[in-house]
Amino acid sequence: MSSASEAPIWDVMTFGETMLRLSPPGFGRIESAISLDFSVGGSESNTAVALARLGRKATWWSRLPKTTLGRKVAQEVSRWGVDTSHVIWTESGRVGTYYIEFGAPPRAHRVHYDRADSEASRMLPDEFDWNLLASARRLHTSGITAALSPNCLATTARAFSEAKSRNVACSMDVNFRSKLWTSREAAAGLAPLITGIDLVLCAQPDASLLFGITGAPMQVAKQICQTFGCRVALVTAGIDGIFAWSADGEAFAPIVVATEVDRVGAGDACTAGVLNGLLDGDIEKAVRYGSAMSSLKHTIPGDLMIADRSEIEALLAGVGAAIQR
Amino acid sequence: MSSASEAPIWDVMTFGETMLRLSPPGFGRIESAISLDFSVGGSESNTAVALARLGRKATWWSRLPKTTLGRKVAQEVSRWGVDTSHVIWTESGRVGTYYIEFGAPPRAHRVHYDRADSEASRMLPDEFDWNLLASARRLHTSGITAALSPNCLATTARAFSEAKSRNVACSMDVNFRSKLWTSREAAAGLAPLITGIDLVLCAQPDASLLFGITGAPMQVAKQICQTFGCRVALVTAGIDGIFAWSADGEAFAPIVVATEVDRVGAGDACTAGVLNGLLDGDIEKAVRYGSAMSSLKHTIPGDLMIADRSEIEALLAGVGAAIQR
Amino acid sequence: MSSASEAPIWDVMTFGETMLRLSPPGFGRIESAISLDFSVGGSESNTAVALARLGRKATWWSRLPKTTLGRKVAQEVSRWGVDTSHVIWTESGRVGTYYIEFGAPPRAHRVHYDRADSEASRMLPDEFDWNLLASARRLHTSGITAALSPNCLATTARAFSEAKSRNVACSMDVNFRSKLWTSREAAAGLAPLITGIDLVLCAQPDASLLFGITGAPMQVAKQICQTFGCRVALVTAGIDGIFAWSADGEAFAPIVVATEVDRVGAGDACTAGVLNGLLDGDIEKAVRYGSAMSSLKHTIPGDLMIADRSEIEALLAGVGAAIQR
Amino acid sequence: MSSASEAPIWDVMTFGETMLRLSPPGFGRIESAISLDFSVGGSESNTAVALARLGRKATWWSRLPKTTLGRKVAQEVSRWGVDTSHVIWTESGRVGTYYIEFGAPPRAHRVHYDRADSEASRMLPDEFDWNLLASARRLHTSGITAALSPNCLATTARAFSEAKSRNVACSMDVNFRSKLWTSREAAAGLAPLITGIDLVLCAQPDASLLFGITGAPMQVAKQICQTFGCRVALVTAGIDGIFAWSADGEAFAPIVVATEVDRVGAGDACTAGVLNGLLDGDIEKAVRYGSAMSSLKHTIPGDLMIADRSEIEALLAGVGAAIQR
Amino acid sequence: MSSASEAPIWDVMTFGETMLRLSPPGFGRIESAISLDFSVGGSESNTAVALARLGRKATWWSRLPKTTLGRKVAQEVSRWGVDTSHVIWTESGRVGTYYIEFGAPPRAHRVHYDRADSEASRMLPDEFDWNLLASARRLHTSGITAALSPNCLATTARAFSEAKSRNVACSMDVNFRSKLWTSREAAAGLAPLITGIDLVLCAQPDASLLFGITGAPMQVAKQICQTFGCRVALVTAGIDGIFAWSADGEAFAPIVVATEVDRVGAGDACTAGVLNGLLDGDIEKAVRYGSAMSSLKHTIPGDLMIADRSEIEALLAGVGAAIQR
Amino acid sequence: MSSASEAPIWDVMTFGETMLRLSPPGFGRIESAISLDFSVGGSESNTAVALARLGRKATWWSRLPKTTLGRKVAQEVSRWGVDTSHVIWTESGRVGTYYIEFGAPPRAHRVHYDRADSEASRMLPDEFDWNLLASARRLHTSGITAALSPNCLATTARAFSEAKSRNVACSMDVNFRSKLWTSREAAAGLAPLITGIDLVLCAQPDASLLFGITGAPMQVAKQICQTFGCRVALVTAGIDGIFAWSADGEAFAPIVVATEVDRVGAGDACTAGVLNGLLDGDIEKAVRYGSAMSSLKHTIPGDLMIADRSEIEALLAGVGAAIQR
Repeated sequence: MSSASEAPIWDVMTFGETMLRLSPPGFGRIESAISLDFSVGGSESNTAVALARLGRKATWWSRLPKTTLGRKVAQEVSRWGVDTSHVIWTESGRVGTYYIEFGAPPRAHRVHYDRADSEASRMLPDEFDWNLLASARRLHTSGITAALSPNCLATTARAFSEAKSRNVACSMDVNFRSKLWTSREAAAGLAPLITGIDLVLCAQPDASLLFGITGAPMQVAKQICQTFGCRVALVTAGIDGIFAWSADGEAFAPIVVATEVDRVGAGDACTAGVLNGLLDGDIEKAVRYGSAMSSLKHTIPGDLMIADRSEIEALLAGVGAAIQR
Repeated sequence: MSSASEAPIWDVMTFGETMLRLSPPGFGRIESAISLDFSVGGSESNTAVALARLGRKATWWSRLPKTTLGRKVAQEVSRWGVDTSHVIWTESGRVGTYYIEFGAPPRAHRVHYDRADSEASRMLPDEFDWNLLASARRLHTSGITAALSPNCLATTARAFSEAKSRNVACSMDVNFRSKLWTSREAAAGLAPLITGIDLVLCAQPDASLLFGITGAPMQVAKQICQTFGCRVALVTAGIDGIFAWSADGEAFAPIVVATEVDRVGAGDACTAGVLNGLLDGDIEKAVRYGSAMSSLKHTIPGDLMIADRSEIEALLAGVGAAIQR
Repeated sequence: MSSASEAPIWDVMTFGETMLRLSPPGFGRIESAISLDFSVGGSESNTAVALARLGRKATWWSRLPKTTLGRKVAQEVSRWGVDTSHVIWTESGRVGTYYIEFGAPPRAHRVHYDRADSEASRMLPDEFDWNLLASARRLHTSGITAALSPNCLATTARAFSEAKSRNVACSMDVNFRSKLWTSREAAAGLAPLITGIDLVLCAQPDASLLFGITGAPMQVAKQICQTFGCRVALVTAGIDGIFAWSADGEAFAPIVVATEVDRVGAGDACTAGVLNGLLDGDIEKAVRYGSAMSSLKHTIPGDLMIADRSEIEALLAGVGAAIQR
Repeated sequence: MSSASEAPIWDVMTFGETMLRLSPPGFGRIESAISLDFSVGGSESNTAVALARLGRKATWWSRLPKTTLGRKVAQEVSRWGVDTSHVIWTESGRVGTYYIEFGAPPRAHRVHYDRADSEASRMLPDEFDWNLLASARRLHTSGITAALSPNCLATTARAFSEAKSRNVACSMDVNFRSKLWTSREAAAGLAPLITGIDLVLCAQPDASLLFGITGAPMQVAKQICQTFGCRVALVTAGIDGIFAWSADGEAFAPIVVATEVDRVGAGDACTAGVLNGLLDGDIEKAVRYGSAMSSLKHTIPGDLMIADRSEIEALLAGVGAAIQR
Repeated sequence: MSSASEAPIWDVMTFGETMLRLSPPGFGRIESAISLDFSVGGSESNTAVALARLGRKATWWSRLPKTTLGRKVAQEVSRWGVDTSHVIWTESGRVGTYYIEFGAPPRAHRVHYDRADSEASRMLPDEFDWNLLASARRLHTSGITAALSPNCLATTARAFSEAKSRNVACSMDVNFRSKLWTSREAAAGLAPLITGIDLVLCAQPDASLLFGITGAPMQVAKQICQTFGCRVALVTAGIDGIFAWSADGEAFAPIVVATEVDRVGAGDACTAGVLNGLLDGDIEKAVRYGSAMSSLKHTIPGDLMIADRSEIEALLAGVGAAIQR
Repeated sequence: MSSASEAPIWDVMTFGETMLRLSPPGFGRIESAISLDFSVGGSESNTAVALARLGRKATWWSRLPKTTLGRKVAQEVSRWGVDTSHVIWTESGRVGTYYIEFGAPPRAHRVHYDRADSEASRMLPDEFDWNLLASARRLHTSGITAALSPNCLATTARAFSEAKSRNVACSMDVNFRSKLWTSREAAAGLAPLITGIDLVLCAQPDASLLFGITGAPMQVAKQICQTFGCRVALVTAGIDGIFAWSADGEAFAPIVVATEVDRVGAGDACTAGVLNGLLDGDIEKAVRYGSAMSSLKHTIPGDLMIADRSEIEALLAGVGAAIQR
């Protein structure tokens, strides 16, 4: 609501695709289901929602059709405090959709995408008002967006270019999806994008698969920074924890073991925690919040991090899982 | 199971697209829903299921991907007794999907299709084994199939041609869908298809809109027969009832008023009743069963006519809606 | 809790079979259901619960196995204020069960019984402590109980005999069930039972079918009294209303039209209203309460009349179906 | 987002109490329920949401505690497009709650309030920033707010005074609630408030009960204007329709008969339609939109009008309740 | 039903507040929930229900309004066999309510109380008929009751005084609730109450926090007895087990590890097991039953211990969690 | 579909009783449930469904009444690909039913059977067309079928005799049920049946209880073969794994630890895996598939193994429980 045009109004600007999410209740199968749980999710909006719940100002940009399904997506993101007023609305078109069946070990979760030709995948570099980046402190997206289509790849390149020209710190979560492109395609597509940006987030196996960077997690982080000229690299290494490296210092946080209710979006919640720390210029805080938020997300149904700052802080303060009354 | 090639093993062979169906419970809105009822529906398989519940042998052909969603469709059709063993299976691809919000008057039901590029829309004239038509007494499809794509139109033409060459009686439910093609396109596409077939089913407004045939319903039926050289035309005229005309005689059945639970598929159930009568060579029976089944379908949730022959016969016998105990 | 043996502690003592009730939600079909609504119901306990909700002291006697299912039945009856402390408990055995599919017109409701060999059907005349009848003002049962088995018929005969010897007013709802016995068997079984009792309740068609008594409803009621030597006969005549005849006077109440939510148990609620009036010696009140309670029961899900005295009185006072706030 | 202080940023500013709403599914009873449907509702926010769905800019002010329940209320209002950024947040306290059991005729709906001492009822005239009224075209509240407490009454008086001083048109829906105050108290409290405001909305029985104004509905409307010096009075007269009178002209709209799914909030939806018309200076449009929106609201579950402008316009254009596909 | 006035008719008389309980299904959040699970719970009635399921005669006294919500509470307690005939009914008023969100580790359960000014909190020492204590063997309440209001504190004092004068053994579960009073207030309020009573139950941390009693659990129990002159003290020490001390002997039971389904009410179930043992004068049995019932309660949804004596005995006999068939 | 009589059309022919299954959602209790999950299950049809999901051709024979409940059973089995066309249909009768409450440790699952006098228990040796066995490669049933009634025992004997005379390999899962017969009766009944058959499956405790065969699991398997002259014996030994012995070699598979969602039917899934291996003449494959399918079944709700061959193969290939996307 502020009118001071020189001051950033968003802590983080994000963009990407958000899909409808459909899943059988409990551990049921799609083939026998007669109802499906219905929500929305997408890597970047998941991160934006988690940031908003921390009290950060976040916006999410995308391309959506003016249908009930398109409005559903925007509304489910905005209701948790994310600014969606810069979404591009088209007259018609598809909304990407994914189905997920939850498995208990040893049964795997099973994801089925139905996202081809979505409106989001048709986003164009020219249709966004990049001048608005002047009102943002950071820009964040993921490798999924870049993988959706050549236009999405071009839009991502344009966004990073526009942001850099305005001194807005850029970050990307590599987030390799083998159903969208090959590792070779991903490496070729992402390498130029992440070159010289502020922050790269990458799972340890993706670093190896895409960029051939192996070794101990902190070494992987360091090598990402050095290879691509980034300021900070954050590497998630499964149960080994979260590792951040920058020329100014490094930081590590162990994972916080969680009982899994719904792990989808845990990486995006981690990203939100990391961005929250970096917004305060605190790499130590970044990994601690990243770890705590990833853990907490495992306990919350749906892609979205519907938790409060107080819950995250209680977790960081070591308050256990007792009943609070 | 019989191998005697001369004897028909199916009373009715159908083909077309069957979609996933998603709808908010009760009269809820998609925008506020957190779960959706989940089932399947398609004009031709709806008719096939209704025929199977009457004890008729029905088969449904289509094109489906070997995914959980593709298997869902086939299984939900076959579980009610329809033979789906001749579905063409592809390695991957989409399954058409539709969303429906149920309205209570004056609020309209609202349907949203997400069916572009489905595997069914890609069916090809050459991929079905038309020789199997020798085992069928009748072939049925709807104008929806013809509208899906040029390939679907060509497949329909081929199917009717193959059927005619084997003396299998053909029928088509015009079923105009303005979201798939214009009335002009539909008229151009359907006119050659219905020319010379055994049975055309058409809603009174569609006859006017597509073919310019107006007047009293029985006159419309007669004119359809005469225009297109069909043996029988069946015209549904809303609350005015169901009208069948053939050179050998005509028949009329009033509608049976029903409390609406779910009207989707009522036309397809009507078609099943009509085919059931014509299989016995009884046009009077055709309209009576058509009317009763349409009415009963209004009371059953979902696209599918999950009712028993005994219930339809009780309705035709005039047994009211008392508790039977 | 009172120990004063001379004072009645129950307004009405009832006995009979109460079954588990299973039904698909909404208008669904058993064949496609994946969950069933689960409750209990039985003519006599339905009446007892309705009486308890009116503030009357009611007890229900039966025979149940000491299983989870047996306890379920007793607990679901007692929780609404009916005394079940005189149920006979056996070590094992079946609990009668019925399935109901709800139809919207013209689709009929469909009831499927699975009640053979239930513990209730094995009740014996000697296992109840008939001396407790001295603490009751009225005894009520239905023709269903008599139909369950020869032992149940004998138990009913014994109960009426014991009651009469203690000057406890007896009533029976004829409640003919063609799935349990033929009309001929029912007539032979029930005629001696209802001879000389205080109150017979009978649907007009049952009077014709079992006893050959036809004519205008009030005439039917009169003839029942005269044929069987009863004090009062109450005849329900569908939409024509409720008719009560006794030598001391007659009374009529029109039906109160209701939107049907669940009509099962409406007759039992009517009976409770009638008994409530007769407990006050007021035949006019009997028909008015019978009519109102039958109507109100149509709007309440389940067999049981979960309504308050205040709602019934508001209905009798003509307060409409507005929101009360 | 505009910073131009002279231009209104809200079409309508509303304030009042919004409660949690709990209701048994279907026609169930609270006493037997094991789950309750959970949403929010309040007269003024209901109106604000309906306005937002029409594309109007609406804001809702209130007082809420910083608890999960308080946040629930604000979020459920804002998610549909209403600006809630001026809600007053307190450290702790209650959120008003109401329970509703839905009855089918002749069973009445039953509402139970648990709203005493809510934070909303403690709102103070001084805690709102009335200067923001300069950014609103209209101010709206209901007589419920005035009834909550002396402080709420004072706050309403202050709001109207502040609005008038800025030439913001004021409106009040009388909305008499006998569980909050007597008709005498209501008359005494509301008369000074509505004197001289732009628009009074009043149900015909309330006009009689509170102000002794009787007669034909249009006469009642006229007399309200003349008695209280209002510009426009709108009187709802049940099935007789909606009547608006002003010195500049009068308008009438018949009701649009609806199948009732949930009538709660229909009056508030009507108010939104009326305000929508008056914002365009069109009293004829006001009653037409009021009638259409009231009707449509009857078909939508919950207090809130989750419908689109297109649906309302289709209804006004006379498009029936067919399936749109 | 016995009329012998000298014989106790209740094994345990309890009193306190029972609240409505509302919780999102599964691990959902209140902010996104559209339905809430609905039940009742309160420390003393939880204990009474668990005793009734063991076959003990238990009564629960409280103060409730004659509303649907008040009746809900009484009925949900009485349906499991607890005598609620001595509840004080008032014409109107609130029923305390609590909301609980269930967390999976590391996310904490979150409880939100809305219980201020409930009818229970307004109970008065003079409104109960204390002479009825002559019919009870034991009296039990918790520190929560004492914390609700000064009147509740006074009522508790009066109850213990009346019980002692009739040689009825008194017990209190300290059950400190920091949201109701401070530890200083609790110590001041509870110390006089527990002085000289038969049994005090206390969690180890509460003993330290309120009374400064620290050390090994059995030492804490001993010191409680010696400090307050009680006969028995029972200390629960988390995973270390349950410790009982009396001058006549001591007893210990390890905890039985359980998979947590719903831990709320586990302490109250433990109390029931302890009372069950003490009713037989067997302190060893007390701790064993306490431990088993606490464990079993963890596996049962809701506050209430809906289990059978046979299940508890099977657990005590060491029968594992196999399928019994 | 083939008519070549010499070629088997079924890999496995099974027969036995399939029941309706009713269970409270989650960990709820029957006594407090208001809805029950509704499905079907029976040892032999569970195995047939699991085989069909592996791509094997399976048929299930039984005796069912032509009621909605009978049709439910057949349809729920056939929908997953099992041929039910040889079920014997009777005009009326019962369908066996079982209730199951799921417990979390230490609370046991609780099963309650209501299966007496089911139509399946009345199957007769003469009513099946045993000549059809010529079209099967294997015949499988369980000791439960033999236990249902003397007629079922005779039918089992007849089936094995007919199969042996046609060189169809027979198998039996001992599956002792103490609620159906004593261990002495079971031993007497089953010993002649399993003598000389191809495969016996037996839980280690049953071997001891029925046949007095004890020792290490592989020794038990060997001794079963030697005692009864079987070709292969498979012994399941809880967490110790699965052991198969035959004169031609032996095989062992460790269990695959699973998070339990629903363990019912895990033994039947194991049997399907074993039969799948033996159909390929591969005893090593038999135990590996048996172990994997038992494990996977623990993670799937319901009796039925609704999983795909690909999931089983992924598990055997050691792919962990990650999200596949």
